[in-house]
Amino acid sequence: MTEEKSANAILLLSCQDQKGLVYNISNFIYRHNGNIVHAAQHTSVTRKIFFMRIEWELNGFVIPREEIALVFKHVASQFDMTWDLHFTDTVPRLAIFVSRHPHCLYDLILRRRMGEIRAEIPLVISNHLDVKPMIEQFGLKFMHFPITPENKADQEQRQIEEIRKHNIDLIILARYMQVLSNRFVEEYPNKIINIHHSFLPAFAGAHPYQQAYDRGVKIIGATSHYVTEQLDDGPIIAQDVIKISHRDALDDIKLKSRDLERTVLAKAVRLHLENRLLPYGSKTVVFE
Amino acid sequence: MTEEKSANAILLLSCQDQKGLVYNISNFIYRHNGNIVHAAQHTSVTRKIFFMRIEWELNGFVIPREEIALVFKHVASQFDMTWDLHFTDTVPRLAIFVSRHPHCLYDLILRRRMGEIRAEIPLVISNHLDVKPMIEQFGLKFMHFPITPENKADQEQRQIEEIRKHNIDLIILARYMQVLSNRFVEEYPNKIINIHHSFLPAFAGAHPYQQAYDRGVKIIGATSHYVTEQLDDGPIIAQDVIKISHRDALDDIKLKSRDLERTVLAKAVRLHLENRLLPYGSKTVVFE
Amino acid sequence: MTEEKSANAILLLSCQDQKGLVYNISNFIYRHNGNIVHAAQHTSVTRKIFFMRIEWELNGFVIPREEIALVFKHVASQFDMTWDLHFTDTVPRLAIFVSRHPHCLYDLILRRRMGEIRAEIPLVISNHLDVKPMIEQFGLKFMHFPITPENKADQEQRQIEEIRKHNIDLIILARYMQVLSNRFVEEYPNKIINIHHSFLPAFAGAHPYQQAYDRGVKIIGATSHYVTEQLDDGPIIAQDVIKISHRDALDDIKLKSRDLERTVLAKAVRLHLENRLLPYGSKTVVFE
Amino acid sequence: MTEEKSANAILLLSCQDQKGLVYNISNFIYRHNGNIVHAAQHTSVTRKIFFMRIEWELNGFVIPREEIALVFKHVASQFDMTWDLHFTDTVPRLAIFVSRHPHCLYDLILRRRMGEIRAEIPLVISNHLDVKPMIEQFGLKFMHFPITPENKADQEQRQIEEIRKHNIDLIILARYMQVLSNRFVEEYPNKIINIHHSFLPAFAGAHPYQQAYDRGVKIIGATSHYVTEQLDDGPIIAQDVIKISHRDALDDIKLKSRDLERTVLAKAVRLHLENRLLPYGSKTVVFE
Repeated sequence: MTEEKSANAILLLSCQDQKGLVYNISNFIYRHNGNIVHAAQHTSVTRKIFFMRIEWELNGFVIPREEIALVFKHVASQFDMTWDLHFTDTVPRLAIFVSRHPHCLYDLILRRRMGEIRAEIPLVISNHLDVKPMIEQFGLKFMHFPITPENKADQEQRQIEEIRKHNIDLIILARYMQVLSNRFVEEYPNKIINIHHSFLPAFAGAHPYQQAYDRGVKIIGATSHYVTEQLDDGPIIAQDVIKISHRDALDDIKLKSRDLERTVLAKAVRLHLENRLLPYGSKTVVFE
Repeated sequence: MTEEKSANAILLLSCQDQKGLVYNISNFIYRHNGNIVHAAQHTSVTRKIFFMRIEWELNGFVIPREEIALVFKHVASQFDMTWDLHFTDTVPRLAIFVSRHPHCLYDLILRRRMGEIRAEIPLVISNHLDVKPMIEQFGLKFMHFPITPENKADQEQRQIEEIRKHNIDLIILARYMQVLSNRFVEEYPNKIINIHHSFLPAFAGAHPYQQAYDRGVKIIGATSHYVTEQLDDGPIIAQDVIKISHRDALDDIKLKSRDLERTVLAKAVRLHLENRLLPYGSKTVVFE
Repeated sequence: MTEEKSANAILLLSCQDQKGLVYNISNFIYRHNGNIVHAAQHTSVTRKIFFMRIEWELNGFVIPREEIALVFKHVASQFDMTWDLHFTDTVPRLAIFVSRHPHCLYDLILRRRMGEIRAEIPLVISNHLDVKPMIEQFGLKFMHFPITPENKADQEQRQIEEIRKHNIDLIILARYMQVLSNRFVEEYPNKIINIHHSFLPAFAGAHPYQQAYDRGVKIIGATSHYVTEQLDDGPIIAQDVIKISHRDALDDIKLKSRDLERTVLAKAVRLHLENRLLPYGSKTVVFE
Repeated sequence: MTEEKSANAILLLSCQDQKGLVYNISNFIYRHNGNIVHAAQHTSVTRKIFFMRIEWELNGFVIPREEIALVFKHVASQFDMTWDLHFTDTVPRLAIFVSRHPHCLYDLILRRRMGEIRAEIPLVISNHLDVKPMIEQFGLKFMHFPITPENKADQEQRQIEEIRKHNIDLIILARYMQVLSNRFVEEYPNKIINIHHSFLPAFAGAHPYQQAYDRGVKIIGATSHYVTEQLDDGPIIAQDVIKISHRDALDDIKLKSRDLERTVLAKAVRLHLENRLLPYGSKTVVFE
């Protein structure tokens, strides 16, 4: 998360665990005169999968950045890797979806202003009009897509068109109270991050505050995850919790939870934007 | 939790919320020359129930301890209170049930030795023989009740007889891997405390460690609760959590969870023994 | 923190511990037909001081709100109480001081917008101009008081005049990097809340991030406290912490700390505004 | 922390950061047919130091375990590395020092019994006799070294002799209330782990519970660190905290702290025994 002087390259990869992986990857970088600044790996013992995130300086690296993928492809194919190449000077573009509760949305906007999140926000989408004045006061583009059972498919189609038009890299559901259709979700695998206001898998679905209050739990939580076709069941990126007591009425729970939601979503977004996440199955490897 | 020089009396009570409750209870103590050392109350806004724990010095109180209940009964009946009277010099008697994982059992025994828990442990019951040598090394009584589907009803009956014979005040399920029958549970309302090795209501039932591992959660928890007929659904007394990551294999999760289980169960037991708990419905009021 | 239909009265009081306190206070409310909605007390065992916060409905209370203080004075003088009377429909007025790091300031402004904090913000004061455009974009009044060793006394005097003119009830130092003079601090006892970006008393004074980084601690914290003449030594209101590791560079520590600072300061401000704080000596009683 | 079928080798190393480190180390393992099971590295940006922990299976590795150090020495000298080689089937030997508070000692003994800590405990040393009966009941060797200002140097010399005689690998100060002399400490660099009952650097020195109580902090902590000549100033290995409130008297603080001390010390000991710690200056790299 430190500020880089010049840009770095980042490889995120996974493959079947086998001998020689670290050697071959580090050899690729070393023999082209690269200087590794961060490297982390993980092996899933149960699944025999190898995961790696490796970051090196472009400065001095003998392969021009446009050709790195071309050259690395040969290493990758040798081990049947799934991989992505990123550069730290890319500025990703976010679309933020929200309904009526704007705390996560405002939090992301302010973090971006203060340099905590490095991204553009070309698009804020809502099924309500509540946040429109504030968003426009912030100088951002607001689009209103009211959703009814009848117009949902059409509206989603129009949303997808806007997302394409604005070259969006990541969609953030910042307390967006509409369930996205499978068709929408399939369009953006591992490109939609949601914040759910409970400690998943507890209190999935509707009204998690009320569910937590009714059950009498002594701790509440918030969960940020990639969105998959199964509601509230995607790979978890970040979670946090806070203690509550019998003194906390439903409104107190909401207040405490909102602080969690803000920080947990912001953390998940930052991890994604810094290319620190490797989802697999219902899980994520998080290279913090 | 501080050490008292002489004994105190503790009233734990609940009733329909109404005017004059604090006045009448404090008047009862004041007009008999009692000195209140702790008092805490709570009103459930949604249910309009008033809860109170009030503790005062017996030293100087003009009603002899044997007659306090008799006199307070008149205050209580006026407001239709549910109430219990306790004295801080009572030493409660515990029966601890365990199966194969002894960490919570050993922890409770050592806390008692070091004065952290004020109680006797006249009885340790297990469906296995694993902990027998260690329990006897500690100088405690061990009883073996192997359970099969066929003998379960009989064995429970014999357990109940031992519990009666030993004048047990509180039953602790310290990782006891048998489900108690409704008949057993009904015998001891709010007198059986269990530790469940997950953050309830997430991962109720069997194999919570495995469930947490498979789901890919980033935080695990432990929950101590009163046992009711509905498995893992009784009023929650205490919960705690710890962060995990993709690096934690199933064995690491078990190790981390055991620390939680020890401290969460010990906390719940101490709260009960200090008469700080008022269960109602699926919840508890905890006067810490 | 729940929304009240009509206003309540709140008494915050402390005095030498003695018999009859709860009785006499509850009697005052009961005999004037008051309905207690919250009550909490605490007795400092070491100092023999009694603390209480008691809240009751004005609706139905037979003393008009203007005369409550007049009538209660007689109860208070009997026990030599220090006390304050508040009403839940008062909207307090805040002055927020800030230097270059605006995260706490923005956070408070947005929380107020979203109804999490019930107050007016008639005045934002800074020794720099950085936040001026944003504050004015929010529609708030910004005043610039650059501070030099030479002009400090004069500028503070002018600040005090503005604070008086705007009828400020609470001054918040939201990362204000100037030490207030004793003269200023004495003017506002228990009316100035600061956020310090460390877990006090560790890393008091300048550069707490750097100090924490250099020492190699595994946890960092933030502390909100009332400002007294002794720098970073006033009664602590709220603290929170977050884990760090060797992987966290100084910039990562700053990022993580800012989340703590926001929530800890907001919590302290809310506790003060809800009249839940009783400072005494170097400590606070917090009636959450 | 998972159980290995056959033994693994572990290299812990540090050196000046430079190109080719990962490549050369992984090449060493790969070209001798080793299978890496864990690898983690860290680069201190401010100090330009590279740290690594790498673990591979001995099974299939073509260099016999006795000769690995001999062969690796040539890689190490090329980069001027500081390094240690460990094997996962080694069972380290602990000496535990204690004074009057036995909770950490008992905790370590029970964790060892339950397989949470893989080590022998051939020696328990105390300046008091309190824990002698219990230690002997556990079947362990207890040695009594009462300390006075006059006999301290002699007693330490005798302790050192016992430590040598018993081939101790790690000394644990489990609430040992004597300050070790510089001479003793110098004998065991990074081989003595202490638990301090505060969140260091806050409340270093004597009576940290009382200090925390008097200051009115809202969170207390415990710190485990390597012992250096400067009291309470060695590299921190692990810390944890728990919230307290004005309701917590000094005895409550002690009770809550003891739970922290147990888990924090156990965690530090386990990290050391699993060769996951690289101390440097006043800090540690912790490869969890």
